[in-house]
Order: sequence, then structure tokens, then C-alpha cells
Amino acid sequence: MPQTTENQPRIYILNGPNLNLLGVREPEKYGTTTLLQIEELCRERADVEGLSIDFRQSNHEGVLVDWVQQAREEAAGIILNPAGLTSTSITLFDALMGVSLPLIEVHITNIHRREAFRHFSYVSQAADAVIAGAGPHGYQLALSHMARLVQSR
Amino acid sequence: MPQTTENQPRIYILNGPNLNLLGVREPEKYGTTTLLQIEELCRERADVEGLSIDFRQSNHEGVLVDWVQQAREEAAGIILNPAGLTSTSITLFDALMGVSLPLIEVHITNIHRREAFRHFSYVSQAADAVIAGAGPHGYQLALSHMARLVQSR
Amino acid sequence: MPQTTENQPRIYILNGPNLNLLGVREPEKYGTTTLLQIEELCRERADVEGLSIDFRQSNHEGVLVDWVQQAREEAAGIILNPAGLTSTSITLFDALMGVSLPLIEVHITNIHRREAFRHFSYVSQAADAVIAGAGPHGYQLALSHMARLVQSR
Amino acid sequence: MPQTTENQPRIYILNGPNLNLLGVREPEKYGTTTLLQIEELCRERADVEGLSIDFRQSNHEGVLVDWVQQAREEAAGIILNPAGLTSTSITLFDALMGVSLPLIEVHITNIHRREAFRHFSYVSQAADAVIAGAGPHGYQLALSHMARLVQSR
Amino acid sequence: MPQTTENQPRIYILNGPNLNLLGVREPEKYGTTTLLQIEELCRERADVEGLSIDFRQSNHEGVLVDWVQQAREEAAGIILNPAGLTSTSITLFDALMGVSLPLIEVHITNIHRREAFRHFSYVSQAADAVIAGAGPHGYQLALSHMARLVQSR
Amino acid sequence: MPQTTENQPRIYILNGPNLNLLGVREPEKYGTTTLLQIEELCRERADVEGLSIDFRQSNHEGVLVDWVQQAREEAAGIILNPAGLTSTSITLFDALMGVSLPLIEVHITNIHRREAFRHFSYVSQAADAVIAGAGPHGYQLALSHMARLVQSR
Amino acid sequence: MPQTTENQPRIYILNGPNLNLLGVREPEKYGTTTLLQIEELCRERADVEGLSIDFRQSNHEGVLVDWVQQAREEAAGIILNPAGLTSTSITLFDALMGVSLPLIEVHITNIHRREAFRHFSYVSQAADAVIAGAGPHGYQLALSHMARLVQSR
Amino acid sequence: MPQTTENQPRIYILNGPNLNLLGVREPEKYGTTTLLQIEELCRERADVEGLSIDFRQSNHEGVLVDWVQQAREEAAGIILNPAGLTSTSITLFDALMGVSLPLIEVHITNIHRREAFRHFSYVSQAADAVIAGAGPHGYQLALSHMARLVQSR
Amino acid sequence: MPQTTENQPRIYILNGPNLNLLGVREPEKYGTTTLLQIEELCRERADVEGLSIDFRQSNHEGVLVDWVQQAREEAAGIILNPAGLTSTSITLFDALMGVSLPLIEVHITNIHRREAFRHFSYVSQAADAVIAGAGPHGYQLALSHMARLVQSR
Amino acid sequence: MPQTTENQPRIYILNGPNLNLLGVREPEKYGTTTLLQIEELCRERADVEGLSIDFRQSNHEGVLVDWVQQAREEAAGIILNPAGLTSTSITLFDALMGVSLPLIEVHITNIHRREAFRHFSYVSQAADAVIAGAGPHGYQLALSHMARLVQSR
Amino acid sequence: MPQTTENQPRIYILNGPNLNLLGVREPEKYGTTTLLQIEELCRERADVEGLSIDFRQSNHEGVLVDWVQQAREEAAGIILNPAGLTSTSITLFDALMGVSLPLIEVHITNIHRREAFRHFSYVSQAADAVIAGAGPHGYQLALSHMARLVQSR
Amino acid sequence: MPQTTENQPRIYILNGPNLNLLGVREPEKYGTTTLLQIEELCRERADVEGLSIDFRQSNHEGVLVDWVQQAREEAAGIILNPAGLTSTSITLFDALMGVSLPLIEVHITNIHRREAFRHFSYVSQAADAVIAGAGPHGYQLALSHMARLVQSR
Repeated sequence: MPQTTENQPRIYILNGPNLNLLGVREPEKYGTTTLLQIEELCRERADVEGLSIDFRQSNHEGVLVDWVQQAREEAAGIILNPAGLTSTSITLFDALMGVSLPLIEVHITNIHRREAFRHFSYVSQAADAVIAGAGPHGYQLALSHMARLVQSR
Repeated sequence: MPQTTENQPRIYILNGPNLNLLGVREPEKYGTTTLLQIEELCRERADVEGLSIDFRQSNHEGVLVDWVQQAREEAAGIILNPAGLTSTSITLFDALMGVSLPLIEVHITNIHRREAFRHFSYVSQAADAVIAGAGPHGYQLALSHMARLVQSR
Repeated sequence: MPQTTENQPRIYILNGPNLNLLGVREPEKYGTTTLLQIEELCRERADVEGLSIDFRQSNHEGVLVDWVQQAREEAAGIILNPAGLTSTSITLFDALMGVSLPLIEVHITNIHRREAFRHFSYVSQAADAVIAGAGPHGYQLALSHMARLVQSR
Repeated sequence: MPQTTENQPRIYILNGPNLNLLGVREPEKYGTTTLLQIEELCRERADVEGLSIDFRQSNHEGVLVDWVQQAREEAAGIILNPAGLTSTSITLFDALMGVSLPLIEVHITNIHRREAFRHFSYVSQAADAVIAGAGPHGYQLALSHMARLVQSR
Repeated sequence: MPQTTENQPRIYILNGPNLNLLGVREPEKYGTTTLLQIEELCRERADVEGLSIDFRQSNHEGVLVDWVQQAREEAAGIILNPAGLTSTSITLFDALMGVSLPLIEVHITNIHRREAFRHFSYVSQAADAVIAGAGPHGYQLALSHMARLVQSR
Repeated sequence: MPQTTENQPRIYILNGPNLNLLGVREPEKYGTTTLLQIEELCRERADVEGLSIDFRQSNHEGVLVDWVQQAREEAAGIILNPAGLTSTSITLFDALMGVSLPLIEVHITNIHRREAFRHFSYVSQAADAVIAGAGPHGYQLALSHMARLVQSR
Repeated sequence: MPQTTENQPRIYILNGPNLNLLGVREPEKYGTTTLLQIEELCRERADVEGLSIDFRQSNHEGVLVDWVQQAREEAAGIILNPAGLTSTSITLFDALMGVSLPLIEVHITNIHRREAFRHFSYVSQAADAVIAGAGPHGYQLALSHMARLVQSR
Repeated sequence: MPQTTENQPRIYILNGPNLNLLGVREPEKYGTTTLLQIEELCRERADVEGLSIDFRQSNHEGVLVDWVQQAREEAAGIILNPAGLTSTSITLFDALMGVSLPLIEVHITNIHRREAFRHFSYVSQAADAVIAGAGPHGYQLALSHMARLVQSR
Repeated sequence: MPQTTENQPRIYILNGPNLNLLGVREPEKYGTTTLLQIEELCRERADVEGLSIDFRQSNHEGVLVDWVQQAREEAAGIILNPAGLTSTSITLFDALMGVSLPLIEVHITNIHRREAFRHFSYVSQAADAVIAGAGPHGYQLALSHMARLVQSR
Repeated sequence: MPQTTENQPRIYILNGPNLNLLGVREPEKYGTTTLLQIEELCRERADVEGLSIDFRQSNHEGVLVDWVQQAREEAAGIILNPAGLTSTSITLFDALMGVSLPLIEVHITNIHRREAFRHFSYVSQAADAVIAGAGPHGYQLALSHMARLVQSR
Repeated sequence: MPQTTENQPRIYILNGPNLNLLGVREPEKYGTTTLLQIEELCRERADVEGLSIDFRQSNHEGVLVDWVQQAREEAAGIILNPAGLTSTSITLFDALMGVSLPLIEVHITNIHRREAFRHFSYVSQAADAVIAGAGPHGYQLALSHMARLVQSR
Repeated sequence: MPQTTENQPRIYILNGPNLNLLGVREPEKYGTTTLLQIEELCRERADVEGLSIDFRQSNHEGVLVDWVQQAREEAAGIILNPAGLTSTSITLFDALMGVSLPLIEVHITNIHRREAFRHFSYVSQAADAVIAGAGPHGYQLALSHMARLVQSR
């Protein structure tokens, strides 16, 4: 793996509740790739794009809010898979609005073909771009696009 | 009290926010039995049914999600009183859907006679059975039914 | 079977439309237990709880209303599975409100996981407790709880 | 008129509330053909199609449910004009779902051009085909189609 | 009591489900006057107005529909307290629409101050006049007005 | 005409906007009786019932509110035809709620058969009784019922 | 200015609340033309069209209702800018429906591009034509069209 | 095949978008009969009924509108399967309303058991009769009924 | 007729689906003036106002979009009667938003007094002014106003 | 009481319908303080804050609109308790939007715990701050805050 | 600063998610005052009012619930700015309902002029008073009012 | 540029109405890149991914439907930017459902931050993945992902 140097832009990749069970939980819906493998895919793509990443997961809304706030100081962009908080967390939305960083929302599944209560996303109201249904590859697409957003700033 | 042996199925009994104040908070609505007394009632019934229990309460949605995930490894079934998270937590719903264990939802009061915002339950979308309005006794009914669900697996 | 004596409290167990086809109709949804077998389960549990029961079924809303009114004179409590009338019958609701007896609503299936038009229940607005999704066993749970409600009066 | 023999498939043609007044009630809306005349039209068409029919009407939802249940034993298909119960009777819907017979819903008028509360039909959720607005002739069309459904089973 | 002669117009006074319990059921809501006493009040007022009455009650929607159809032949007007069927029975509405007689809807209580599901009335869509909240006296007011409607025909 | 004496209870009969045009405006909808003639009918009935009346009309919501407030001091009851303010004036509703007098709402037409925006009535939330669709006679019925309400206080 | 003779049809041009502040209030939204200037524009156009006008403004709904009623006697047509009463005044709607005169509704701004609560107009339910968003010129267009409506009667 | 003569009434049978793929597209939903085969079935039935047909399909809403307008001149009736335009095309509805010809709406599947967005039909607001769920046979039923409509004109 | 010179501003007058049948289709609703006559009226008024016009009609949404795009290059303003596309075509709305020309929406009838589904207009969200219910004359009013909009640019 | 000098900023304190009955009407809901006493409390606080006040009440929406317009000329800020006009008066909202003065909305009760129709406030859409449920003291809080708003301009 | 003595009533001032970023996050929306400065303002005002305060902030709903529960034991009143939890947290609402202490809800901005999803507040259903839009000063107003609520207990 | 050989999978890239104006129309919303430039970007990326492309645009819904049907025969996948048809075209949805090819929906802007009527997408109900808000780059991301979808088939 290539060396991540200090002067590469740092991207926070934040994963919401239950994503720690990826690859284990309901594989017919979410696939068999684990979160660890997704992190690995992200590192590979980040190297290509000249980005460094900080890859995290939490089941706690408050912790995710803390991390978004922390990103204000330390990150050049945020990629967020808000999972079950997508449609309910105004708190997360407020945190994201308070951070003037590029933001890309990622969903592993196409949420628009799932239950109606998943169709509205507070996060989308704050995001620059939204990528849904591309599976783990969606994270890589997000990193590719993040590289452009970071550059054009 | 009879000895709980290792080979008895273990049931997680999870209690959501504010249930630690049972018996103290608004007794005209929730009765005078404390959560400790309910735990005691549960232990008695569990002994009768040949189950062992793990009885917990948290005010933190994230902690409840952690426990549901932990149940995947360690429990044979979940009895959940989601309290104020009933109608709002897609995150808890996702955790429950990711666990292929028998699930019984319990409410001390009959939520259908209370405020309209309590009538919809995400947890009910994942539960095998729902028991509401039977007071502390509802936990015992849930354990009786859980014994059957665990047996028939 | 123990002798049912006159001085045992009498509980009306009323079953709504189409429940006479239980065990025959759509067994993948409602199971294979017949209504006759449920009545037998109820008698067994009633004996244990010190209750006598009057177990009836009708496809006619008007007959069910008549029975609820009759319960005013002759019963100490009502267990009701309103079936297809659950969400539509204000008439049944009015009858139940006019009877100041303990009332437990039972559904064999978890109605909250079925069609949206089954989610609202007029009966729940009048019931002390609601038990859904516990199959035929739900009637037994209801009797156990009814014993407590009758006692505490 | 040709002889109806035992080995012809028997079709229940069930008519809901107030259809006994057809031809009398509001002729500008429902036409001048009486229910007796419709029965006659049905017999003629049934003969052509090689079907025997059982033609009934009731103002009582419960009686209609009884008949649908009876059809389970005795009929090869059901043609139903649910009239005023179309949009309100979950009970009738449940009865129909419990019968695995071909079902055709008939309305004399085009209900979609009438009051909004007539537009939703529980019966349509259970029916194979729906014919509305073809007047008394609609019953004949339904019998023609029923002949095909019965044959293809 | 004055003699009711043949040539007085006959008014059907029809009472819906649970009204047989008037004066007994929830007196704080419906008052202490029984249905028998209301019938007596109606006879008194009918005598004054030169009308004869036919006063009936049923818990069965189908029976009420039968009576409305019968009124076509035998009555000069209908006074109807539809009770719990007010907001749900399209069947009753259809029967009333098929009868071209004066129709007055009566409610003992002011339904507009009660639960939201009582506010819409199918019967009101067919009625000439509606009187709600005047208690048993409302029947007398209805008879007074019916006398005028019958006269002006 | 009999003499109205001081010790007869005084009833305010208040008429809302546009009722001054009764008998002139859209007679096919509102009939040909003028408001003056209705006042006359009211006086006749009031004499019979032993009431005195104060009969007023205004096109101004504020004036109607003033009159309702004045009734607090001077009247024993209010009969109100709120006309176009029925469904919109919370201000009128507040005034009526602040007056602890018997209140009867009258509508000349059956508002439930008219435009949907007329179906909700703020006034009904404050009224003891509601009479709709009885034409000018409705005022007389209201006075008859008011006599009872005033007496029973 | 040409002389307005008696035998020219008289058009009421009525302006609702706050229009007296035109040209002063929020000029970026309503423009800089004052109501006086609009009246002048109307007089000029009325002269061309052979109409005489009566141009009025009030902040009081009741006064506007009075004027509409007065128009019954004295006017050949009404041009109305109902301003803030557009979406709320059933009272004004009733007054307009009671007047069988040509009616044109005018709005200075295009109300359909403003707040959602301005999109529904009771007045439009009574109007022959609606002109919105044409600024002060809209009054002139209305007068041109009114001339045709008056002529074709 | 019998000869279609000039003096037989001509019926337009119009098929909306994607119906050209019938028998190919999603056969588990729409069956295996191709549109060409349906045309053949229609010709056979038309011969029996003494009608001639003009059978067309287009994926273009505008073309369908053109054809409906053309039917004004050349056809005695229209049978229309609007497919995906059913619930969205006011334009098609307007065209149909402008044609005073008998109109029968046909759907191969029972649209009421499919996605909610298919339940409302603009075409039904203009149609004499609606036949849904009878598969290709539905076209034949429509032709049988059209023969009657054409005759009775 | 005066000569239209090159240097007069050119206004596109675009007419949506079914307007080619004006004067023929449902004259009781749309009047007896044909689209050709309206074009003539427009030419007359355009001459007065110093405008040249390009008057077109299509039943095809796509063609209308093409024309709006073409107007970007060739026109000084657009007058659009979107007919049945008014309430459904986001595509037309997008085309109009992409053209920074003065836009006036015209409807021959007052759409606010017609079916509810005609009340919302996408086109109104893009239009400067809206004129509805003024019949063919509405096109002339629109041209008068367009002259001002073009001038003030 | 200190002398109010000319050069103190003048604040309009406007009170809507029925507030003249404060302290008299429904004291269990609105308390026992009269409007006169509230005016006194306001004067005391105004003195402290260096403001002069103009304290008014009206039951007439039009009068309140007049006063808001007058405030444009004469006041430095408006404190408004819109009472029953809160949720219905677009007219009042328009007046307030036309005045570019600091605006504080006051409600004596917490309107969010009362009937649902009181929850939406047009006035809140125009106000700088909203104070609800603080009783008469709320006026004093409003004055304290108004002092800051006036100062910071 | 004056000494806070033990016998002063203690007020919990709780601040919800993201309020730690006040003065930093979106200053054009929330102003430039930091939360630390607000705490200082609160201390000053508390001293004046004879109150001691406990000023806290958390991004975690569960922690806020814990604090509200703790207030039961240790505080005389609660001032709460629920921030993004305002409209979503039934859990927080339940905690507040379980505490029988005076409660004042504070919002720095006027939430009624912001996104629609911020308009409903669960907290308002539990609060005595609500102050919104008064900026940091709102906390001081809340303390002033709290002093009265604490006193009057 | 590398040679596109026959045996590369062919991807249809279809662009809906008004996209031909990209880079010209509202550049502040859609950017300055033209559709031709996007096609160029697509060709570059397709070469990298080993795909050949067929890049088309139409303002006509019917043409787009034709192309989707054609893709059944000739393409290995579809990338679709449905533009203004996103939220309205059931016809396009039906065409896509009838094609069992990989489908990726692309939007240049983040439609979830635009008008509410753009939030629902019929196309999303049929798509494998959705990419919104990534500008022209979104097409490239879609091609990268399409390469994987095509491969994994």
C-alpha cells in the first residue's frame, strides 16, 4: 500500500448504525462484503485519487454528530452513509449544515425501491451529491467525485 | 430461587428510555411497580418457563442497538419495550431486522389509547408478537410466549 | 377436565367474521389450528385460571353487538377477536364502550405487519390490553391476563 | 331452456345490499332492468357457456359472508356485485381471500364516475377481473369470462 | 292517548345499533331517558302533529336497510338515528337514496364535539335536515319538522 | 301579539353575513322567506315558549363578536346562524366559548350536502345543539329547544 | 377627461385589505404605482370602454361584503382584488355568489408563484375571469373584458 | 375470415405505450399473448358482432390524441387500453371528452391489485365501461359490449 | 391588414393538445370560436400593439417543448395555452424556465371552477401573468400585456 | 410613575378579539388578570425600558389592520397578541409584512398545547420573536426584548 | 460576581445537539454569540433573579434524557433548547413529562420561519412557556420567567 | 482515441427533455458544460471501461420509450437522465421495467434539494443505482459502475 503523506486532503468516511454488520446481516439485501472490506476498497481508491481517509462507524447518533463537528477542523470533505438515521435525524442534518465541507451521501442499496419511510432523506438536503444502489462500489465512486470537489474548492 | 443452568435458552429483555423511572414517573399512567420489581417478576416467570434472562435498560438509542446486535451472538430471543423509540427509531428497526431471533414487543400501557404519535410502531414491523396494555404482567405473558417460540425453532 | 362451578367468573370469548374457517382458510397466514381447537385451549386455560368461558363466533356484526350487550348482564369480562371488523366497526366500538367490563383484544396474526388498512383498530380504543401475533396461544395469554383484571375489580 | 346437469360447474352470483330494488330505485342511475330480469339474462348466458348458476341477493353483510364461505364447498367460481359494501367491507374481503376460487367483480354503473368514496374497492384487491359500467350486460360478460377461468384451472 | 287513524301519514322512526341501551349505557354521555321513553315522547308529539309513527330499533345494518326499503311502500317519511353506522354505512346511504321520502337525521349528542371519526355522516348526504345535540327532544323537533315536509309534498 | 314582559328570558338570535339578503339571494338555494319574515316567525314562537328575543344581523365578524360578548350580560341564551363564518372564524368560536350560555347553531340549508369547505364548523365545537336544513322553521325549532335549555339551568 | 354620463354602465372596482399601501408597501413585490394612480388608470380605460366606475378600498371584510351587496342594486359588474381575503373569506364568496353580475378577479402579482396558502381562491370559484400578475395594467385588462361581458348580457 | 363490408360500424381499438411488447415483456405479469394475436382475437370477435375494427398502437401520447380526434370523424366507438398513460394523461382525457362516442377502457391486468399509482384512471372518468384483469379476452368482452352501445345509439 | 415588418417583436402563441378542436369540441364549455378565428383575433390585436405573431398548435408535448426552445432564438415573448398539459408537464415547465422571455399563460375557461386536478399549474410557476376565463378575448388581453412586457425590457 | 417624554420610542401593543374579556372569560384557561391590569404591567415595564406604549384592543380584524398600518408612521415596534386571528388572518399577516418594524408575537397561553387549529400562526411568519405561555408576564418579556430590537436598529 | 449560595433554587439549562458550535456555525442564521457567552449571560441574569444555574450541552439524546431525569432530584426548573431534537424526540418528551418541574423551551431563531419540519415541537407539548427568535436574550427572558414559576409553586 | 471494436458491450446513454440546452439554459443551476461535451466525457470514460456507447437526447417521451425498447435488442445496459420526465412518466417506467438490463439513473443536480415535485422518481423504482448531484461527472461515475454491472451478469 502506498504511503499516505501529510499533505493529502483527509476525507472522513462516516458510517451510521448497523453498518458494522455488513456482510453478515441480511446478505440477500446488503450483499456479502464486510465493512472492513469496504474500508479496504476505500483505501485503495483514495490512494489513486490522492486522498487520505478516516473511516469510522458508530451506532450512536451523538457520536456521528461529534465526528461531523470534528471534521470541521480536520477534514477536507465528508462521505456519509447515514443508514437508519437518513430519514429521521434532524440533528445530523444540522451538524452537516454547520460544516461547510463537500458532502457526498452514499447508500449501498437503492433506498427508493425499499420501504416508503426510507425515501425521504434529511442528509440529501445538505449533500452535494447522492449515490444509491451501487453497493460497496458506491463508496469508490464517492471518493472519485470527492477528489474533484476538493480540487475545485 | 432455582438455579439457572448454562443450557437454558437466554432471553434478552431490553427496556428503552425512561423506563428506569417506572413506578416513580407518572404512576397514574404507568402504575407503581418499579423496573426492579418487573425484573423480579420476569426472573420468576423465566424459571417456570425454563429460560434464563438478561434484563437491561438504557436511555441511549445507540446502546440499545449495540445490545440487539450482541443478542445475535448470545441470545435465543428478544423481548423489547422500546418506549419512546417505538415510533421514531428506524435504527432500532434495522438492528432488529438484522437479527433473525424471535422478537416480542411489550408496552406497559395500551399505546393505541394514547397520543396519535404513539400509534405507529417501527418495532411492530419486525416483531413476531405485540402485547400492549397488560402492565408489568405483559412481560410475563411475553416470556410465556417466548418459551413457545424458542421451542418451535 | 375440572368441573366448572357457578361461582366462577364467566368470560365471553367472541370471535368475528371468517374465524370459523381458521385452520382451513389460508393456513400459511393463520396456521392450522381450528377454532374448535382454540376453544379447547381456552377451556383448559380457563380451568387453570378459575374462570368459566362462553366461546362464540359469528359472521354478523349485529350478532356480535348483541352478544356484547348481553355480556353486560352475564359476563365478568370480554375477550374479543374482531377480525375484519377491527378497523371498520364503530358500532362494535360503541357497544364495547357501553359495557364497563374488562376487555382484551386478540389477533392471531401481527396485524401491524399486514395491509395498512388493518393497522387502525376501533376496538383498541376501548380495550384494556391488546395481544397480536401470538397465534392461538394469544387466547390463552388473554385468559391469564383476564384472570388478573377480574380479580383486581 | 337447456337442462342444467349436475356435472356443469356451478357459479355463485352474489348481489349485495339494495340490488333487490334494481329497476325500481333511481332508474336514471341504475336503469330499468330488474334483478329478476338480470337473473334470467344470467341463466341464458350460463346455458351457452355450459355453467350452472346460483343467483342470490342479500342486504346483510353477514349473509353474504356466509354465502362466500359456502361457495368454498359448492361452487367453481364467484361473480360478485358488492354494491354499497364495495368500499367498506374488510369482512367480505377476508371471506373472498379465504376462498381460492375464480372471482369476478361486477358493477352495473361505472363507479369511477360517481362519488369519490366509491372509487376504492376492497373486493378488487381479491378479484381476478373487474367489470364496471356495462349495465346488466356486465353480468353476462362476467359469465363468459368465468367460463374461461373455470376451464383453465 | 288520542286514536291514531288510518289516514294519518305514517312516519318510520328508525334507531341504529346500541340505542336500545339508551338511559343505561354511559348516562353521562347519552342521558338517562330510555328508548321506550323516547318512543312515548314521539307518540305524544306525533299525535299533536297529526302523524302516526312506527318506532323501531336494530343492531343489524341489514335489518335497518330492509326497513328503509319497506318504508318505500308504507311510510310518508323517515326519521333516522343511525348511531354508529352514521359514518361508515354506504349501504344505508344507498338505501336512503333509493327512497324518495322526506328524511331527517337525528343524533342525541352533538356529534361534532365528539371523536373526529364521528364528524362525517353518509346519512347527512341523503337527509333533508339534521338535528344533533338536542337529546331526546331532538326526536320531537324532527317530528314537528316532518309534519311540514309531509304537508308540503 | 302578546306583551313581552321584563321577566321573560331574553334570547339573542344572531345572523351572520349575507343573511340580510335571504329571500332575495339565490332563492333556489335559500328559499323565498326574507329575514324579516324569519324574525316574525321567531317572535311568534318566542311568545309561545315564553321567551323574548333580540334579533340581529351583521356582515361584520367583529360586530358579531361584540354582540356575543354583550350577550354575556344581557341574554339567557344564543341562537346563531354563522353563515359564511361557520368554517373560518376562530374569533367567533372564542367569543362563544367565553360565554357560558346555552347555544344553538342553525343553518337554513343542510350544509353537509353543499361544498366540502362548509362541512367543518367551529361553531359546532361550542354549540349545545345544531339544526341544519330545516329552512326558516329551523329557527323555531331552535327556540323550542332553547326554552328547555333555559329552563333546565 | 371626458364626461361620464348617466347611461354608461357602472362598474364597481373593489380593493381589499392593505391595497391602500400600494406603491409604498414592499415595492419590490408590488411595484411603485399607488392605488390612486391605479384608480386614474382605471378611469382612463373606463372612458375608452364606455364604462363609469366606482373605485373603493377597505381593510374591513364586512365593508367589502356591504359593497358587494350594494352592487346588486347599483352596478353592472364587479372587478375585485380581494388581496389577503382571497383564500380565506367564505363570507365574501357568499356575497359574490348572491350577486348575479359579471365578476372579474384581479391580482397585481402572480399569486401562484407566491406562498402556497395564496394559491387557493374562494373568489375564483365565483368569478367569470381571473387576471393575475399583470400589475396595475391588470385592472385595465379587466375593464376591457368587463366591457364585453356587460355588452353580451 | 368473413368479409368486412363498408356499412359495418367501425371501432377504433387503440393501444397505449409499451403494449407492442405484449407477450415478450414480463410474461409473468402480462401473459404470453402478443399484440398481434390480440388483434386477431379482436377481428374474430368483431366479425361475430358485426363490427369492423381499426387496431393501432403507439408509444406517443400525442399520436394517441391524434387518433382519438380522428375517431370523431371515422369511428362509431373507441376501445382504449391506455397503459401507462391511464393515470397521468389529462391530455388524453380531454381528447376523449371531446369525442361523443361510446368508450370502453380495457386493462389486461387488474390494475387495482398493482402499484397504488395505477389505481386512479383519468380515462375511467370519460369511459362508459371499464374491464380490467380479463387478459386478452377483455378486448373481446369489450367488443361484445361495444356492439350493444353502438346499437342502442 | 397592416404590413408586418421585420423589426416588430415576434411573439410565439403556442396552443396545447386538443385546442385544434376549439369551436367543435364541447361548445357549451369552450364556446363556438374556432382556433383559426382566434388566430385571426390575435393578428388583429398584434397589429394594433405593433407585434408580429407566430401562432401554432400541437397535440404533442415534445413538439411544444421544441417550440419553446426555438423561441429562445426567434421570439421576444411567449403566450401559452398549455391546455391538458397545464397540470402535468414538468418537461414543459423546464423548457419555459430555460427561456428568459416574458411568458403569459392563457386559459379560455376559468380552470379554477373546473375539476380539482386542473387547479394546479406548472406553467403558472414560470409565467409572468395568468389570464383565465376570458374566452378567446383572453388571447387579445395577453397580447396587450405582452406589448408592455416587451417594451419594458 | 415617571414621566413619558416625547423622545422615547413608541411601541404599539395590539390585542386581538376577545382579549377585552381577559380575567373574566374562562379564568381557568386565561388566568384572572384583566387586560387593564396587563396594560398597567406594560406601562411599568416600558418605563423601565425607556419606551412609551400605545395599548389597544379590538374585536375587528379590519381595525387591527388599520392600526398596524398606522404604526408604520407612528411606532418604533409592534407587540401583537393576535388571539383568534393568529391562524386565520392572511390580511393581518400582509399588513405586518408591509411594515418594516420589529414585531413580537405574544400569547398568554401555550398555544401548542391547545387545539390543533391553533398551532399554525400566520403572524409567526412575520414576527421576529414569539413568546407563548408566559401569561401576562409575556407582555413584559416582550417589552424587554423590544427595547433591544429598537436599540439595535 | 455575587456568591451563589446553597439555598438559591437551581435551574438546569440544557442545550441540545450542535449548540456547542453557536457563534461559529452559520453565524448569519444563529448569530455570533458563543454558547460560553450565553452561559455568562445566564449567570448574570440568574444572579439578578436569585437563581443558581447548571448549564450543559450535549450532542447525545440519551445524555439529555439522563440530565432531565437527574433534574428530578436536583433542580427546581428546566430551561431547554432542544435544537434538532425538537421535532423528533419522543424520548425527550417522555422524560420531560415524567418530571413535574417548570419547563421553558427556548429557541434562538424563530423556528416558525424556517423549514416546515421544524414547526412541530414535542417539547412544546410539555413546556409551560415557549420563547423563540429572541436570540441569546431569549435565555435571559426564560430565566426571568422561571423565577416567577419557581416562586409561585 | 482508442478504437471501439464490435465486441465491446454497448451502453445506451439516454437524455430526456431540455438536456439539449445544457450549458446554455440556467448555467447557475446546471453548469456550463454542454451536452456535446458530456458525450465526449462519456466516450473517454467508456474507452477506459471497455464499453461502447450510444448517446442520444430527445424532448419527446415517446421517442425515449422507443429507444428503451430498442435497447432490449441492441444494448447491454442503459444510463438514463430522465430530466423532467423523472417524476411523471409511468410510461417510461413501464418501458424500463420491460427491459431486463442494468439501469443507472443520473441527475446532474441533486434533485432532493430542488422543488418538492422533483423528489419522487418513477425511474428510481426501476433503476439499479441512482447518482444525483455529481454534475457531468455523474455520467462518468455511471459508466464506471455500469462496467461492473455488465461484467457481473
